Amino acid sequence: MKFKGKNISLGKNVKLGKNVRIGDNTVIYDNVDIADNTTVCNNCIIGEPTKDYYTNKNYKNPKTKIGVNSLIRSHTIIYASVKTGTNFSTGHRVTIREKSKFGDYCMIGTMSDIQGYVKFGDYCRLHSSVHICQYSEIGNFVFIYPFVVFTNDPHPPSTVWKGPKIGNFTQIAVSSIINSEVKIGSNCLVAANSFIKSDMPDFSVFGGSPAEKISDIRKIKSKQVSGMHYPWMKNFSKGMPWGKIGFEKWQQKKG
Amino acid sequence: MKFKGKNISLGKNVKLGKNVRIGDNTVIYDNVDIADNTTVCNNCIIGEPTKDYYTNKNYKNPKTKIGVNSLIRSHTIIYASVKTGTNFSTGHRVTIREKSKFGDYCMIGTMSDIQGYVKFGDYCRLHSSVHICQYSEIGNFVFIYPFVVFTNDPHPPSTVWKGPKIGNFTQIAVSSIINSEVKIGSNCLVAANSFIKSDMPDFSVFGGSPAEKISDIRKIKSKQVSGMHYPWMKNFSKGMPWGKIGFEKWQQKKG
Amino acid sequence: MKFKGKNISLGKNVKLGKNVRIGDNTVIYDNVDIADNTTVCNNCIIGEPTKDYYTNKNYKNPKTKIGVNSLIRSHTIIYASVKTGTNFSTGHRVTIREKSKFGDYCMIGTMSDIQGYVKFGDYCRLHSSVHICQYSEIGNFVFIYPFVVFTNDPHPPSTVWKGPKIGNFTQIAVSSIINSEVKIGSNCLVAANSFIKSDMPDFSVFGGSPAEKISDIRKIKSKQVSGMHYPWMKNFSKGMPWGKIGFEKWQQKKG
Repeated sequence: MKFKGKNISLGKNVKLGKNVRIGDNTVIYDNVDIADNTTVCNNCIIGEPTKDYYTNKNYKNPKTKIGVNSLIRSHTIIYASVKTGTNFSTGHRVTIREKSKFGDYCMIGTMSDIQGYVKFGDYCRLHSSVHICQYSEIGNFVFIYPFVVFTNDPHPPSTVWKGPKIGNFTQIAVSSIINSEVKIGSNCLVAANSFIKSDMPDFSVFGGSPAEKISDIRKIKSKQVSGMHYPWMKNFSKGMPWGKIGFEKWQQKKG
Repeated sequence: MKFKGKNISLGKNVKLGKNVRIGDNTVIYDNVDIADNTTVCNNCIIGEPTKDYYTNKNYKNPKTKIGVNSLIRSHTIIYASVKTGTNFSTGHRVTIREKSKFGDYCMIGTMSDIQGYVKFGDYCRLHSSVHICQYSEIGNFVFIYPFVVFTNDPHPPSTVWKGPKIGNFTQIAVSSIINSEVKIGSNCLVAANSFIKSDMPDFSVFGGSPAEKISDIRKIKSKQVSGMHYPWMKNFSKGMPWGKIGFEKWQQKKG
Repeated sequence: MKFKGKNISLGKNVKLGKNVRIGDNTVIYDNVDIADNTTVCNNCIIGEPTKDYYTNKNYKNPKTKIGVNSLIRSHTIIYASVKTGTNFSTGHRVTIREKSKFGDYCMIGTMSDIQGYVKFGDYCRLHSSVHICQYSEIGNFVFIYPFVVFTNDPHPPSTVWKGPKIGNFTQIAVSSIINSEVKIGSNCLVAANSFIKSDMPDFSVFGGSPAEKISDIRKIKSKQVSGMHYPWMKNFSKGMPWGKIGFEKWQQKKG
């Protein structure tokens, strides 16, 4: 039904792996490498040149790499020099700027806007409309919800940009702001609508504007099972590598 | 001027009513039914297949229905299985995911993101950049303003999703958050920048984070006429079915 | 590498200056004038007709003007009747509605949404996902950051729309709300996450919801140099007309 091969543009030195499918009206620029079994849907731009392209006649597009088994949904723009891991997926209209690096199994939701020069671990999930500023560092299994914004400028405008740093398993709820230079530990919860201006220790829950510690995450009761909800890995396995064997056994296996 | 019929893709079993116009570069997938006098502008995708399509060889696109007299602006994506009423309209770059159902005369603004499995009544208006989560239920004549987000997960991530429920004639001002499971009555006003964590009775105004009742809506003076502004239906008729005869007479006529 | 000239649509009376480049799949409607050395990237729509087009058989597209040396990035939509100054640039997926007027050297970031009937001075910069309501007036050198929303309706819905007015050199940080009719002076700072409901005098810093004055901007220490950071023009010159000669000398030269 899809993928009639209409109006596709491929640049020079584009490498398409086995079973790669490219949607109609998609443009792939020079030096893009798309690994096996990946699908790029309609109207995407992969390997979008950086600003230099418009002004520098000798501009050469840096290498872009999309990992195996990925699904890039329609209208997504991925800049040249981005590298994704395996099983990467995007929603629609995602923008990922230059020098962004993703681990495996990351999902980036519709209209999320990755400003470039960022690093994501494995199994990160951004819901719709998340804004990640330059120089952010995000661990593994970090989930971020709509209208969250990361900032990197302590007194705009300036040139002393320092992005936030987020630990493993942390959850950042809707419409929160993470200030420049903030370090959030692992297994934290940023409550919805929080403005995080100070560092958060592991297992803490912060809320408010400016946000303060409001709880230990291990004290939040589950509405799903009896007992506590966090660490969430024991109660949530959809798409997670531990699947049915559970987080604890999976960790033991990994050693 | 528009609609040169360039680079349009039509799937199988697409039904186009009388006077339907399709813009350039638009893709319409299988089993889409577009009723009379509807215009779909450039670069849209109608009947976008759900994720199953990419993995299930026997995938069959569910039926999609766009009502009569609708206007779908450019770059809008409407998933397969969506049903809209008559006189539906979207701004640009709207995303409407699967199993969304709309009454008549709904307007969905630019970049609004409907996550699917939601139900809207008649004459709802979403301004730009509204995020509606799965399992939301929205009454008639509900207007929602930019950067409002509906949530459905009480402790993310989990699988106990319950969307908010909104009564008739309610207004939700900019940048507000509506928490999972919250029930908002009819004729309510959510003030700008509110975080609604508890139910709101009919005719109440809530504000703050977490929001509390700050007024009865019938006590808000109009800046437009002498007297009170709400219920707004007596002071606002643009595009409303009561038009010049006024809300009260219209209601009486309806019985 | 880019600009293969594939699938471009040009309306009637489109004037393209010297060295104008148009990306693939871009549509330019009637009566658009694009000045010398401007680049319009892929999948853009320039001169998008207003709603009248769909209902009025005698509709004539008003004139649209894009200034010299501009760069319109992919998927941007600019309505008919918009006028930009020189050296205008947009990120991706920008929407600029009718009767918007821009001075020179304005930059409008990815997914920003200009609702029309607005006026910008010179050297304004909107970062990603800024929402500017109708009837806003914005001075020179105003920078606005992600998820900021301007509002114009004091009690929605109504028809007494009055937009905010922003003075020169003012900075509006992330996720802030600027209420209808508010006047913000020059050299102000709106702190992140603020809800501005009252006027702000020159050189003031407001924060909170509702926002109050929290400082004089000239008392904020720089993290970049010794001394104070604001007025920022002495510490920031990237893309600014004063460049290396500095703001003071530039002002003296201008007289």
